[in-house]
Amino acid sequence: MDLEKFKSCIDACNECATYCDYCAVSCLQEDDVKMMAECVRLDMQCAQICRLAASFMAQNSDYVKEVCRLCAELCRKCEAECRQHEMAHCQQCAEACKRSAEECEAIANA
Amino acid sequence: MDLEKFKSCIDACNECATYCDYCAVSCLQEDDVKMMAECVRLDMQCAQICRLAASFMAQNSDYVKEVCRLCAELCRKCEAECRQHEMAHCQQCAEACKRSAEECEAIANA
Amino acid sequence: MDLEKFKSCIDACNECATYCDYCAVSCLQEDDVKMMAECVRLDMQCAQICRLAASFMAQNSDYVKEVCRLCAELCRKCEAECRQHEMAHCQQCAEACKRSAEECEAIANA
Amino acid sequence: MDLEKFKSCIDACNECATYCDYCAVSCLQEDDVKMMAECVRLDMQCAQICRLAASFMAQNSDYVKEVCRLCAELCRKCEAECRQHEMAHCQQCAEACKRSAEECEAIANA
Repeated sequence: MDLEKFKSCIDACNECATYCDYCAVSCLQEDDVKMMAECVRLDMQCAQICRLAASFMAQNSDYVKEVCRLCAELCRKCEAECRQHEMAHCQQCAEACKRSAEECEAIANA
Repeated sequence: MDLEKFKSCIDACNECATYCDYCAVSCLQEDDVKMMAECVRLDMQCAQICRLAASFMAQNSDYVKEVCRLCAELCRKCEAECRQHEMAHCQQCAEACKRSAEECEAIANA
Repeated sequence: MDLEKFKSCIDACNECATYCDYCAVSCLQEDDVKMMAECVRLDMQCAQICRLAASFMAQNSDYVKEVCRLCAELCRKCEAECRQHEMAHCQQCAEACKRSAEECEAIANA
Repeated sequence: MDLEKFKSCIDACNECATYCDYCAVSCLQEDDVKMMAECVRLDMQCAQICRLAASFMAQNSDYVKEVCRLCAELCRKCEAECRQHEMAHCQQCAEACKRSAEECEAIANA
């Protein structure tokens, strides 16, 4: 068993989870919170699935591909929502989601 | 090792996590989301620590007391915030937080 | 949004997570741990995906079906492994996995 | 709110969670699993509290210090157990636990 083959994807998922959590609480501090509601909702889910994916990869689970496929889907959805908002926390989160999605897609399609 | 001594606390923590998650997304659908921002923030944290506490109890961790003490603190804080809002999801969540806090305090002080 | 439609599945997933965590640490205390290694490995993954599924349902996520489908797969796999061991913790876990799998399959196929 | 002040601790916690998960499943593949049982048990708990700590820091929770204090305790305990085993996965995990413990202690005592 080899952790190395998953290491860059694990790191991308963890980074994405961090920026999603940060984006969620930053959205909640914006003046127009209502406009950010969908972003918060997706951030919460994306952070959770990213941490699960990171853990399943570290455990070399037989379900790594399925989990990464689902994780990539959520990352793409969260990225698309974040792109619509100009705040730095949303733009950073969109970039982190994109990297995580790309890494997860590579694992899912390997 | 005996699961029974923790079972009612585990159930209360899981119930609390469920109502916190539900309260968070319900708050995000309210007209005045800004008023609910702190509630969403606490719901997110409370759901997470409740799931960790449930898992640590199920594993009979040596850190059950410390985790339950911290979980009770967060449940009390989340309960107090939810009490201030009249929506059904907040009132239900407050009750679930109260039960979870009481169960966790009993474990922490045993 | 309605929590009721997911409540019995959420409860089954939480129950499954509890018995998986408990089974894992109980397996680690058996005399012949080596025979239980695969059971521990599956318990760990099953507990994690069950808690994620419970949380996604409580949040009424758009990905509830996908997560429940994957959760059911892991529950079935964990159930099959646990059935092979006669210890009470494995037999209880197998039953909890079965109920969780059935509930998740009902959601996934709804 | 500033993510930067927590970033190195978040990274250390995520790294620790990864090596704990990897160490747990690697221990389960060792010939003498029985000797590794306590290591698996601590790895599982350490991975969970590290991910919670990372998430609470990313959310700038009011409970960051308490969570980091508890996380550091578990990291130190897991480190001590891993030090006793010469396998590469245990030695790597011990180092990751040490770094995470140091970072968490710095936050807890700030």
